[in-house]
Amino acid sequence: MPSTSANPKALVLIADGTEEMEFTITYDTLVRGGFDTTSAFVDTFRAQTGSQPERKAVSDNLAVATCSRGVKIIADTVFEAEGASEKFGPDKFDLLVIPGGMIGAKTLSDKKSGVPKLVREYLDKDKYVGMICAGSLAAKSAELPRQPLTSHPSVKEELESSFDYSEESVVISGKLVTTRGPGSTFPFALTLVELIQGKDKRKEISPPMMFPPQTPW
Amino acid sequence: MPSTSANPKALVLIADGTEEMEFTITYDTLVRGGFDTTSAFVDTFRAQTGSQPERKAVSDNLAVATCSRGVKIIADTVFEAEGASEKFGPDKFDLLVIPGGMIGAKTLSDKKSGVPKLVREYLDKDKYVGMICAGSLAAKSAELPRQPLTSHPSVKEELESSFDYSEESVVISGKLVTTRGPGSTFPFALTLVELIQGKDKRKEISPPMMFPPQTPW
Repeated sequence: MPSTSANPKALVLIADGTEEMEFTITYDTLVRGGFDTTSAFVDTFRAQTGSQPERKAVSDNLAVATCSRGVKIIADTVFEAEGASEKFGPDKFDLLVIPGGMIGAKTLSDKKSGVPKLVREYLDKDKYVGMICAGSLAAKSAELPRQPLTSHPSVKEELESSFDYSEESVVISGKLVTTRGPGSTFPFALTLVELIQGKDKRKEISPPMMFPPQTPW
Repeated sequence: MPSTSANPKALVLIADGTEEMEFTITYDTLVRGGFDTTSAFVDTFRAQTGSQPERKAVSDNLAVATCSRGVKIIADTVFEAEGASEKFGPDKFDLLVIPGGMIGAKTLSDKKSGVPKLVREYLDKDKYVGMICAGSLAAKSAELPRQPLTSHPSVKEELESSFDYSEESVVISGKLVTTRGPGSTFPFALTLVELIQGKDKRKEISPPMMFPPQTPW
Protein backbone atom coordinates (compact mmCIF):
# COMPACT_ATOMS: atom_id res chain seq x y z
CA MET A 1 0.00 0.00 0.00
CA PRO A 2 1.17 3.57 -0.57
CA SER A 3 3.16 5.07 2.26
CA THR A 4 5.12 8.18 3.03
CA SER A 5 8.47 6.34 3.14
CA ALA A 6 11.33 7.12 0.85
CA ASN A 7 11.07 3.72 -0.80
CA PRO A 8 10.26 3.62 -4.50
CA LYS A 9 6.61 2.90 -5.18
CA ALA A 10 5.26 0.30 -7.56
CA LEU A 11 1.75 -0.15 -8.91
CA VAL A 12 0.92 -3.66 -10.16
CA LEU A 13 -2.41 -3.98 -11.96
CA ILE A 14 -4.62 -7.06 -11.82
CA ALA A 15 -7.87 -8.11 -13.48
CA ASP A 16 -9.97 -11.22 -13.86
CA GLY A 17 -7.88 -13.59 -15.96
CA THR A 18 -4.51 -12.15 -14.96
CA GLU A 19 -1.77 -14.80 -14.87
CA GLU A 20 -1.38 -15.28 -11.13
CA MET A 21 2.29 -16.33 -11.22
CA GLU A 22 3.21 -13.23 -13.25
CA PHE A 23 1.35 -11.02 -10.78
CA THR A 24 2.61 -12.71 -7.64
CA ILE A 25 6.26 -13.13 -8.63
CA THR A 26 6.39 -9.45 -9.59
CA TYR A 27 4.63 -8.15 -6.48
CA ASP A 28 6.61 -10.32 -4.07
CA THR A 29 10.00 -9.69 -5.71
CA LEU A 30 9.40 -5.93 -5.72
CA VAL A 31 8.52 -6.04 -2.00
CA ARG A 32 11.73 -7.98 -1.37
CA GLY A 33 13.49 -5.31 -3.42
CA GLY A 34 12.34 -2.55 -1.08
CA PHE A 35 9.40 -1.20 -3.09
CA ASP A 36 6.19 -0.02 -1.47
CA THR A 37 3.99 -2.11 -3.71
CA THR A 38 0.28 -1.59 -4.39
CA SER A 39 -2.02 -3.80 -6.45
CA ALA A 40 -5.06 -2.28 -8.13
CA PHE A 41 -7.99 -4.25 -9.54
CA VAL A 42 -9.26 -3.22 -12.97
CA ASP A 43 -12.87 -4.27 -13.47
CA THR A 44 -13.50 -5.91 -16.84
CA PHE A 45 -17.02 -4.61 -17.35
CA ARG A 46 -15.99 -1.08 -16.55
CA ALA A 47 -12.92 -1.36 -18.75
CA GLN A 48 -14.97 -2.49 -21.71
CA THR A 49 -17.87 -0.11 -21.39
CA GLY A 50 -16.44 2.89 -19.57
CA SER A 51 -19.53 2.64 -17.41
CA GLN A 52 -20.28 1.83 -13.81
CA PRO A 53 -18.58 -1.33 -12.62
CA GLU A 54 -20.38 -4.59 -12.42
CA ARG A 55 -19.66 -5.56 -8.83
CA LYS A 56 -17.82 -8.81 -9.24
CA ALA A 57 -16.22 -8.42 -5.86
CA VAL A 58 -17.36 -10.69 -3.07
CA SER A 59 -18.25 -7.61 -1.05
CA ASP A 60 -18.54 -4.00 -2.12
CA ASN A 61 -15.33 -3.26 -0.28
CA LEU A 62 -13.24 -5.85 -2.02
CA ALA A 63 -11.54 -6.13 -5.35
CA VAL A 64 -11.23 -9.83 -6.00
CA ALA A 65 -9.51 -10.99 -9.16
CA THR A 66 -10.14 -14.55 -10.28
CA CYS A 67 -6.89 -15.29 -12.04
CA SER A 68 -6.16 -17.43 -15.09
CA ARG A 69 -5.75 -20.74 -13.22
CA GLY A 70 -8.32 -20.03 -10.54
CA VAL A 71 -6.28 -18.40 -7.77
CA LYS A 72 -8.38 -15.61 -6.23
CA ILE A 73 -6.40 -12.54 -5.19
CA ILE A 74 -7.72 -9.52 -3.30
CA ALA A 75 -6.13 -6.38 -4.67
CA ASP A 76 -5.05 -3.57 -2.36
CA THR A 77 -7.34 -1.08 -4.10
CA VAL A 78 -9.69 -0.60 -7.04
CA PHE A 79 -8.50 1.15 -10.19
CA GLU A 80 -10.86 3.63 -11.79
CA ALA A 81 -10.26 5.37 -15.11
CA GLU A 82 -11.80 8.57 -13.76
CA GLY A 83 -9.12 10.34 -11.78
CA ALA A 84 -6.54 7.67 -12.58
CA SER A 85 -3.85 10.21 -13.47
CA GLU A 86 -4.11 11.79 -10.03
CA LYS A 87 -4.53 8.63 -7.97
CA PHE A 88 -2.41 6.14 -9.92
CA GLY A 89 -0.24 8.39 -12.09
CA PRO A 90 3.51 8.88 -12.32
CA ASP A 91 3.48 11.47 -9.52
CA LYS A 92 2.32 8.74 -7.14
CA PHE A 93 4.35 5.73 -8.31
CA ASP A 94 7.77 5.08 -9.81
CA LEU A 95 6.83 1.92 -11.68
CA LEU A 96 3.68 0.61 -13.37
CA VAL A 97 3.44 -3.12 -14.14
CA ILE A 98 0.92 -4.79 -16.46
CA PRO A 99 0.89 -8.58 -16.11
CA GLY A 100 -0.31 -11.02 -18.74
CA GLY A 101 -2.81 -13.80 -18.89
CA MET A 102 -4.80 -13.33 -22.09
CA ILE A 103 -8.16 -12.43 -20.57
CA GLY A 104 -6.66 -10.08 -18.01
CA ALA A 105 -4.38 -8.46 -20.58
CA LYS A 106 -7.33 -7.73 -22.84
CA THR A 107 -8.94 -5.80 -19.99
CA LEU A 108 -5.74 -3.98 -19.06
CA SER A 109 -4.94 -3.03 -22.66
CA ASP A 110 -8.48 -1.83 -23.40
CA LYS A 111 -8.38 1.93 -23.95
CA LYS A 112 -11.61 2.36 -21.99
CA SER A 113 -9.89 0.95 -18.89
CA GLY A 114 -7.72 4.07 -18.71
CA VAL A 115 -4.57 1.97 -18.49
CA PRO A 116 -3.09 2.73 -21.95
CA LYS A 117 -3.36 6.47 -21.21
CA LEU A 118 -1.56 5.88 -17.91
CA VAL A 119 1.21 3.98 -19.69
CA ARG A 120 1.91 7.04 -21.82
CA GLU A 121 1.87 9.33 -18.80
CA TYR A 122 4.46 7.19 -16.99
CA LEU A 123 6.78 7.09 -19.98
CA ASP A 124 6.30 10.83 -20.65
CA LYS A 125 7.43 11.48 -17.06
CA ASP A 126 10.40 9.14 -17.49
CA LYS A 127 8.98 6.56 -15.06
CA TYR A 128 9.33 2.81 -15.62
CA VAL A 129 6.60 0.65 -17.16
CA GLY A 130 6.82 -3.16 -17.13
CA MET A 131 4.71 -5.45 -19.30
CA ILE A 132 4.57 -9.23 -19.04
CA CYS A 133 3.40 -11.84 -21.58
CA ALA A 134 0.16 -10.69 -23.26
CA GLY A 135 0.36 -7.54 -21.11
CA SER A 136 2.56 -6.14 -23.87
CA LEU A 137 -0.64 -5.57 -25.85
CA ALA A 138 -0.93 -2.40 -23.76
CA ALA A 139 2.10 -1.01 -25.62
CA LYS A 140 0.07 -1.16 -28.80
CA SER A 141 -3.15 0.28 -27.40
CA ALA A 142 -1.07 3.03 -25.76
CA GLU A 143 0.26 3.77 -29.27
CA LEU A 144 3.85 3.81 -28.08
CA PRO A 145 6.45 4.63 -30.72
CA ARG A 146 8.20 1.77 -32.52
CA GLN A 147 10.84 0.32 -30.23
CA PRO A 148 12.22 -3.07 -29.09
CA LEU A 149 9.70 -5.18 -27.19
CA THR A 150 8.85 -8.78 -26.41
CA SER A 151 5.71 -10.66 -25.34
CA HIS A 152 4.26 -14.12 -25.12
CA PRO A 153 4.54 -15.67 -28.61
CA SER A 154 0.75 -16.03 -28.69
CA VAL A 155 0.39 -12.27 -29.26
CA LYS A 156 3.50 -11.76 -31.39
CA GLU A 157 1.43 -11.30 -34.55
CA GLU A 158 -0.50 -8.43 -33.02
CA LEU A 159 2.70 -6.60 -32.09
CA GLU A 160 5.34 -7.26 -34.72
CA SER A 161 4.09 -4.71 -37.25
CA SER A 162 4.17 -1.87 -34.67
CA PHE A 163 7.36 -2.73 -32.77
CA ASP A 164 10.86 -4.13 -33.22
CA TYR A 165 9.80 -7.52 -31.95
CA SER A 166 12.45 -9.39 -29.96
CA GLU A 167 12.67 -12.99 -28.75
CA GLU A 168 14.84 -12.02 -25.76
CA SER A 169 13.48 -13.06 -22.36
CA VAL A 170 13.67 -9.54 -20.93
CA VAL A 171 13.82 -6.48 -23.21
CA ILE A 172 14.79 -3.05 -21.87
CA SER A 173 13.86 -0.15 -24.15
CA GLY A 174 14.46 3.10 -22.30
CA LYS A 175 11.95 2.98 -19.47
CA LEU A 176 9.83 0.22 -21.04
CA VAL A 177 10.72 -3.27 -19.80
CA THR A 178 8.94 -6.30 -21.31
CA THR A 179 9.10 -10.06 -20.83
CA ARG A 180 7.65 -13.25 -22.27
CA GLY A 181 5.72 -15.25 -19.67
CA PRO A 182 5.60 -16.64 -16.14
CA GLY A 183 8.86 -18.51 -16.70
CA SER A 184 10.72 -15.25 -17.33
CA THR A 185 9.02 -13.17 -14.64
CA PHE A 186 11.74 -13.75 -12.02
CA PRO A 187 14.48 -12.20 -14.20
CA PHE A 188 12.02 -9.48 -15.30
CA ALA A 189 11.24 -8.47 -11.72
CA LEU A 190 14.88 -8.69 -10.66
CA THR A 191 15.81 -6.49 -13.64
CA LEU A 192 13.33 -3.84 -12.44
CA VAL A 193 14.81 -4.06 -8.93
CA GLU A 194 18.28 -3.56 -10.38
CA LEU A 195 17.27 -0.67 -12.65
CA ILE A 196 15.52 1.26 -9.88
CA GLN A 197 17.22 0.09 -6.67
CA GLY A 198 20.65 -0.82 -7.99
CA LYS A 199 22.73 -3.90 -8.59
CA ASP A 200 23.55 -4.40 -4.90
CA LYS A 201 19.88 -4.71 -3.97
CA ARG A 202 19.40 -7.37 -6.64
CA LYS A 203 22.45 -9.22 -5.33
CA GLU A 204 21.07 -8.99 -1.79
CA ILE A 205 17.63 -10.42 -2.50
CA SER A 206 18.45 -13.14 -5.04
CA PRO A 207 20.33 -15.74 -2.94
CA PRO A 208 17.59 -16.22 -0.29
CA MET A 209 15.15 -17.05 -3.10
CA MET A 210 17.15 -20.25 -3.72
CA PHE A 211 17.35 -20.40 -7.50
CA PRO A 212 18.93 -23.70 -8.56
CA PRO A 213 22.62 -23.67 -9.53
CA GLN A 214 23.12 -22.68 -13.19
CA THR A 215 19.96 -20.60 -13.27
CA PRO A 216 20.88 -17.96 -15.87
CA TRP A 217 19.73 -14.89 -13.88
CA MET B 1 -11.98 -27.41 -6.44
CA PRO B 2 -12.69 -31.14 -6.13
CA SER B 3 -14.53 -32.67 -9.05
CA THR B 4 -15.61 -36.06 -10.24
CA SER B 5 -13.23 -36.04 -13.21
CA ALA B 6 -10.52 -38.59 -13.69
CA ASN B 7 -7.83 -35.95 -13.24
CA PRO B 8 -5.46 -36.35 -10.32
CA LYS B 9 -6.39 -34.18 -7.37
CA ALA B 10 -4.04 -31.88 -5.48
CA LEU B 11 -4.52 -30.15 -2.14
CA VAL B 12 -2.33 -27.08 -1.58
CA LEU B 13 -2.45 -25.66 1.94
CA ILE B 14 -2.16 -21.96 2.76
CA ALA B 15 -2.00 -19.91 5.95
CA ASP B 16 -1.25 -16.37 7.01
CA GLY B 17 2.42 -15.85 6.23
CA THR B 18 2.63 -18.44 3.45
CA GLU B 19 5.14 -17.47 0.76
CA GLU B 20 2.80 -16.36 -2.02
CA MET B 21 5.14 -17.25 -4.90
CA GLU B 22 5.60 -20.78 -3.58
CA PHE B 23 1.85 -21.20 -3.23
CA THR B 24 0.92 -19.62 -6.57
CA ILE B 25 3.62 -21.24 -8.72
CA THR B 26 2.63 -24.65 -7.34
CA TYR B 27 -1.12 -24.17 -7.70
CA ASP B 28 -0.92 -22.71 -11.20
CA THR B 29 1.63 -25.24 -12.51
CA LEU B 30 -0.45 -28.14 -11.17
CA VAL B 31 -3.55 -26.75 -12.90
CA ARG B 32 -1.55 -26.47 -16.13
CA GLY B 33 -0.47 -30.07 -15.51
CA GLY B 34 -4.05 -31.30 -15.48
CA PHE B 35 -4.63 -31.52 -11.72
CA ASP B 36 -7.94 -30.62 -10.09
CA THR B 37 -6.34 -28.33 -7.55
CA THR B 38 -7.86 -27.17 -4.26
CA SER B 39 -6.41 -24.69 -1.80
CA ALA B 40 -7.37 -24.92 1.87
CA PHE B 41 -6.80 -22.21 4.46
CA VAL B 42 -5.37 -23.28 7.81
CA ASP B 43 -6.25 -20.80 10.54
CA THR B 44 -3.29 -19.90 12.74
CA PHE B 45 -5.22 -19.45 15.98
CA ARG B 46 -6.99 -22.75 15.53
CA ALA B 47 -3.76 -24.49 14.60
CA GLN B 48 -2.03 -23.24 17.72
CA THR B 49 -4.80 -23.81 20.21
CA GLY B 50 -6.86 -26.60 18.71
CA SER B 51 -9.86 -24.42 19.56
CA GLN B 52 -12.48 -22.53 17.63
CA PRO B 53 -11.01 -20.40 14.89
CA GLU B 54 -10.50 -16.71 15.30
CA ARG B 55 -12.36 -15.40 12.27
CA LYS B 56 -9.62 -13.65 10.38
CA ALA B 57 -11.54 -13.96 7.14
CA VAL B 58 -13.11 -10.83 5.73
CA SER B 59 -16.47 -12.56 5.85
CA ASP B 60 -17.50 -15.77 7.55
CA ASN B 61 -17.65 -17.44 4.17
CA LEU B 62 -14.12 -16.59 3.16
CA ALA B 63 -10.71 -17.94 3.96
CA VAL B 64 -8.32 -15.09 3.28
CA ALA B 65 -4.61 -15.67 3.74
CA THR B 66 -2.40 -12.62 4.08
CA CYS B 67 0.82 -13.95 2.61
CA SER B 68 4.43 -13.22 3.51
CA ARG B 69 4.84 -10.16 1.25
CA GLY B 70 1.29 -8.90 1.60
CA VAL B 71 -0.55 -10.60 -1.27
CA LYS B 72 -4.01 -11.60 -0.05
CA ILE B 73 -5.29 -14.90 -1.43
CA ILE B 74 -8.76 -16.38 -0.95
CA ALA B 75 -8.48 -20.13 -0.51
CA ASP B 76 -10.99 -22.49 -2.10
CA THR B 77 -11.99 -23.90 1.27
CA VAL B 78 -11.18 -23.89 4.99
CA PHE B 79 -9.12 -26.68 6.52
CA GLU B 80 -10.25 -28.05 9.86
CA ALA B 81 -8.36 -30.60 11.94
CA GLU B 82 -11.61 -32.27 12.96
CA GLY B 83 -12.61 -34.57 10.16
CA ALA B 84 -9.52 -33.73 8.12
CA SER B 85 -8.79 -37.38 7.32
CA GLU B 86 -12.19 -37.77 5.70
CA LYS B 87 -12.41 -34.40 3.96
CA PHE B 88 -8.77 -33.76 3.04
CA GLY B 89 -7.20 -37.20 3.35
CA PRO B 90 -5.45 -39.48 0.85
CA ASP B 91 -8.76 -40.99 -0.27
CA LYS B 92 -9.78 -37.56 -1.58
CA PHE B 93 -6.51 -36.25 -3.04
CA ASP B 94 -3.44 -37.67 -4.78
CA LEU B 95 -1.03 -34.98 -3.64
CA LEU B 96 -0.67 -32.77 -0.57
CA VAL B 97 1.56 -29.67 -0.78
CA ILE B 98 2.84 -27.62 2.15
CA PRO B 99 4.38 -24.30 1.06
CA GLY B 100 6.89 -22.28 3.02
CA GLY B 101 7.13 -18.76 4.30
CA MET B 102 8.30 -18.99 7.91
CA ILE B 103 5.13 -17.80 9.65
CA GLY B 104 2.85 -19.89 7.46
CA ALA B 105 5.07 -22.95 7.79
CA LYS B 106 4.97 -22.71 11.57
CA THR B 107 1.19 -22.90 11.42
CA LEU B 108 1.16 -25.74 8.89
CA SER B 109 3.75 -27.78 10.81
CA ASP B 110 2.03 -27.31 14.18
CA LYS B 111 0.70 -30.66 15.34
CA LYS B 112 -2.49 -29.05 16.57
CA SER B 113 -3.28 -27.92 13.02
CA GLY B 114 -3.87 -31.54 12.04
CA VAL B 115 -1.52 -31.21 9.08
CA PRO B 116 1.37 -33.39 10.35
CA LYS B 117 -1.06 -36.26 10.97
CA LEU B 118 -2.36 -35.83 7.43
CA VAL B 119 1.20 -35.96 6.07
CA ARG B 120 1.66 -39.38 7.62
CA GLU B 121 -1.68 -40.60 6.27
CA TYR B 122 -0.75 -39.58 2.71
CA LEU B 123 2.61 -41.31 2.87
CA ASP B 124 1.10 -44.40 4.53
CA LYS B 125 -1.30 -44.65 1.59
CA ASP B 126 1.55 -44.17 -0.89
CA LYS B 127 0.30 -40.74 -2.00
CA TYR B 128 2.65 -37.85 -2.77
CA VAL B 129 3.51 -35.08 -0.31
CA GLY B 130 5.40 -31.95 -1.39
CA MET B 131 7.08 -29.52 0.99
CA ILE B 132 8.61 -26.19 0.05
CA CYS B 133 11.15 -24.02 1.89
CA ALA B 134 10.29 -23.85 5.62
CA GLY B 135 7.31 -26.11 4.85
CA SER B 136 9.75 -29.00 5.31
CA LEU B 137 9.38 -28.44 9.06
CA ALA B 138 6.19 -30.48 8.70
CA ALA B 139 8.36 -33.55 7.97
CA LYS B 140 9.80 -33.19 11.46
CA SER B 141 6.53 -32.56 13.28
CA ALA B 142 5.02 -35.50 11.37
CA GLU B 143 7.90 -37.57 12.78
CA LEU B 144 8.74 -39.04 9.39
CA PRO B 145 11.55 -41.60 9.34
CA ARG B 146 15.08 -40.42 8.52
CA GLN B 147 15.34 -39.91 4.77
CA PRO B 148 16.76 -37.42 2.23
CA LEU B 149 15.15 -34.00 2.39
CA THR B 150 15.88 -30.35 1.66
CA SER B 151 14.47 -27.02 2.85
CA HIS B 152 15.26 -23.34 2.96
CA PRO B 153 18.71 -22.98 4.60
CA SER B 154 17.11 -20.89 7.36
CA VAL B 155 15.57 -24.03 8.88
CA LYS B 156 18.39 -26.46 8.06
CA GLU B 157 19.50 -26.61 11.71
CA GLU B 158 16.08 -27.77 12.82
CA LEU B 159 16.07 -30.62 10.31
CA GLU B 160 19.60 -31.95 9.88
CA SER B 161 19.66 -34.12 12.99
CA SER B 162 16.45 -35.93 11.98
CA PHE B 163 16.98 -36.28 8.22
CA ASP B 164 19.67 -36.86 5.60
CA TYR B 165 19.83 -33.18 4.77
CA SER B 166 20.53 -32.38 1.11
CA GLU B 167 21.45 -29.15 -0.68
CA GLU B 168 19.84 -30.31 -3.94
CA SER B 169 17.16 -27.97 -5.32
CA VAL B 170 14.53 -30.71 -5.54
CA VAL B 171 14.83 -33.91 -3.49
CA ILE B 172 12.69 -36.96 -4.24
CA SER B 173 12.52 -39.51 -1.42
CA GLY B 174 9.92 -42.11 -2.25
CA LYS B 175 6.67 -40.15 -2.24
CA LEU B 176 8.12 -37.17 -0.33
CA VAL B 177 9.30 -34.34 -2.61
CA THR B 178 10.99 -31.28 -1.05
CA THR B 179 12.50 -28.06 -2.37
CA ARG B 180 14.39 -25.01 -1.13
CA GLY B 181 12.49 -21.79 -1.83
CA PRO B 182 10.50 -19.71 -4.31
CA GLY B 183 13.36 -19.82 -6.79
CA SER B 184 13.18 -23.61 -6.99
CA THR B 185 9.39 -23.94 -6.95
CA PHE B 186 9.04 -24.12 -10.74
CA PRO B 187 11.23 -27.25 -11.03
CA PHE B 188 9.57 -28.65 -7.88
CA ALA B 189 6.07 -28.27 -9.33
CA LEU B 190 7.15 -29.57 -12.73
CA THR B 191 8.73 -32.58 -11.01
CA LEU B 192 5.40 -33.36 -9.32
CA VAL B 193 3.63 -33.05 -12.68
CA GLU B 194 6.14 -35.46 -14.21
CA LEU B 195 5.95 -37.97 -11.34
CA ILE B 196 2.15 -38.12 -11.36
CA GLN B 197 1.16 -37.17 -14.91
CA GLY B 198 4.20 -38.35 -16.80
CA LYS B 199 7.11 -36.87 -18.69
CA ASP B 200 5.03 -35.97 -21.74
CA LYS B 201 2.73 -33.74 -19.70
CA ARG B 202 5.72 -31.88 -18.30
CA LYS B 203 7.10 -31.46 -21.82
CA GLU B 204 3.73 -30.16 -22.99
CA ILE B 205 3.28 -27.48 -20.34
CA SER B 206 6.84 -26.18 -19.98
CA PRO B 207 7.42 -24.36 -23.31
CA PRO B 208 4.38 -22.02 -23.07
CA MET B 209 5.67 -20.83 -19.69
CA MET B 210 8.62 -19.22 -21.53
CA PHE B 211 11.57 -20.07 -19.31
CA PRO B 212 14.68 -18.27 -20.60
CA PRO B 213 17.15 -20.28 -22.69
CA GLN B 214 19.64 -22.22 -20.51
CA THR B 215 17.17 -22.49 -17.64
CA PRO B 216 18.26 -25.79 -16.05
CA TRP B 217 14.80 -27.37 -15.74
